[in-house]
Amino acid sequence: MTQQQVQQVVAVLGRGVVDPDEPVVSADDLGFTRGDGVFDATRVVIDGSGRRVDNLEAHLARFARSIHLLEGAVPDLDGWRALIEQAVAACPFSGEITLKIMWTRGRESTVTQPLGVLTLTPMTAAAIAQRAGVRVAALQRGLASDAFTDVPWLLGGAKTLSYAVNVAAKREAARRGADDVLFVSSDGYCLEGPTSALVAAFGRRLVATPRGATGILASITQEIAFDAARAAGWDTSDELLRPDQLFEADGAWLLSSVRGAAPILELDRRPLAQNAALTSQIVAWTGF
Amino acid sequence: MTQQQVQQVVAVLGRGVVDPDEPVVSADDLGFTRGDGVFDATRVVIDGSGRRVDNLEAHLARFARSIHLLEGAVPDLDGWRALIEQAVAACPFSGEITLKIMWTRGRESTVTQPLGVLTLTPMTAAAIAQRAGVRVAALQRGLASDAFTDVPWLLGGAKTLSYAVNVAAKREAARRGADDVLFVSSDGYCLEGPTSALVAAFGRRLVATPRGATGILASITQEIAFDAARAAGWDTSDELLRPDQLFEADGAWLLSSVRGAAPILELDRRPLAQNAALTSQIVAWTGF
Repeated sequence: MTQQQVQQVVAVLGRGVVDPDEPVVSADDLGFTRGDGVFDATRVVIDGSGRRVDNLEAHLARFARSIHLLEGAVPDLDGWRALIEQAVAACPFSGEITLKIMWTRGRESTVTQPLGVLTLTPMTAAAIAQRAGVRVAALQRGLASDAFTDVPWLLGGAKTLSYAVNVAAKREAARRGADDVLFVSSDGYCLEGPTSALVAAFGRRLVATPRGATGILASITQEIAFDAARAAGWDTSDELLRPDQLFEADGAWLLSSVRGAAPILELDRRPLAQNAALTSQIVAWTGF
Repeated sequence: MTQQQVQQVVAVLGRGVVDPDEPVVSADDLGFTRGDGVFDATRVVIDGSGRRVDNLEAHLARFARSIHLLEGAVPDLDGWRALIEQAVAACPFSGEITLKIMWTRGRESTVTQPLGVLTLTPMTAAAIAQRAGVRVAALQRGLASDAFTDVPWLLGGAKTLSYAVNVAAKREAARRGADDVLFVSSDGYCLEGPTSALVAAFGRRLVATPRGATGILASITQEIAFDAARAAGWDTSDELLRPDQLFEADGAWLLSSVRGAAPILELDRRPLAQNAALTSQIVAWTGF
């Protein structure tokens, strides 16, 4: 196997690193047939100074929380740590790499264990280029901003493998000439991107979408940025914003653990305020 | 391989029948990592009179429609027909069997073909027993009954692999002592079950949930039953019903291609009208 052929590293919990072209998921795995599983993702950086996984413990904690929301058994996080360490050590790529960890309920036809799989994939140039800014399409999500109150079966806050709507929304954005999506609730509030969180700045105050009733995913990158911002004397708050309010902000960003903080250049083709110093500050607070 | 060991038949488009314990889905297959794929399911009956697949062409047509809604390429239905024929011929089980066909967008890390997989799995005794009737929990779906108007990215009407909410709702039903779920829209209308369609009878009139704006899946079993009912001189209509209206009906059923028509015994522990002759009539109209 030369580096040219290998597109990714694949490892399976309980087995270790496997041939990346070897299928590892059974036809009746419930994560495949029903999207009945969860994932989490973060960035791995491999360079002259070593190999590091960004915010691993926070991602493992969120991963465990997602599994809990799907009523899975408590995962063996030590086993996951060892598998990740082994896979990262075996990784033939350098630079920025996406680590994705996935858990499924396991096979339907036989009484078996849950399945744990991870992949390491080099970040694409296109994803890295989006750090300079993204054009965003606001797309209706169909759910009210309080739709997730007292309805745990809607799986609010869980990062599930059932992301078909998220990828369909990204295709719709591309059709509209945009790079990414901002989901909007049926009552007209900004929610999140398909794989990112929204942050807006108003003076020395950062605003994020509230969790809980909105069903959005708790963003580790946003939490880290807000902690750093508060340490620097800024205010932070969780507030529902209407898309129109983003045009009054000093800036707005989509944050993710892999791409970092990408300034929103325009929303539905209408420009948002840009401030390079402010973006640099946000990026620094995210730890990128 | 003895029949005792084999829990299912697995076949892959372009390959044919494979060892049922051989994983066939790659770790980076988008159907696995994102639920970015579709499926369809129907019943196969293998008995002394032969091997037959129920309503195969209608299911292939709906499968192709689901793929189209996800913007996949037109599937090779002749290839699917041949694969299904081969798998059914090789099937070691008899009685009633669930055929599931699945399509995914393929692997993310390499430029590849979509993946096509099918499974044949014997129906469980529990599923067959539910034909005698199901206790149903009404669960909020969070979306209004017109939420799918002009928002194709929400994938209304597509039978996707992103069914995590559907299975979470079934777990919630079990916790409530129920066998199945009736999803209710945020504005209070009956929608569908996680894997079934609702039909209610009022005199010589059958009512089903409208498609389109509700986002529900077009039910092949319901369409077949309605065609037969009209041929028998009954009226049929698509109407939004409130859960309370089901208690005024002469009966209500959850219809699926595998389980057939199961009378709803009770909704949220409150009994619905039962009429064995009427249920027999509905079952006959579904072709079961």
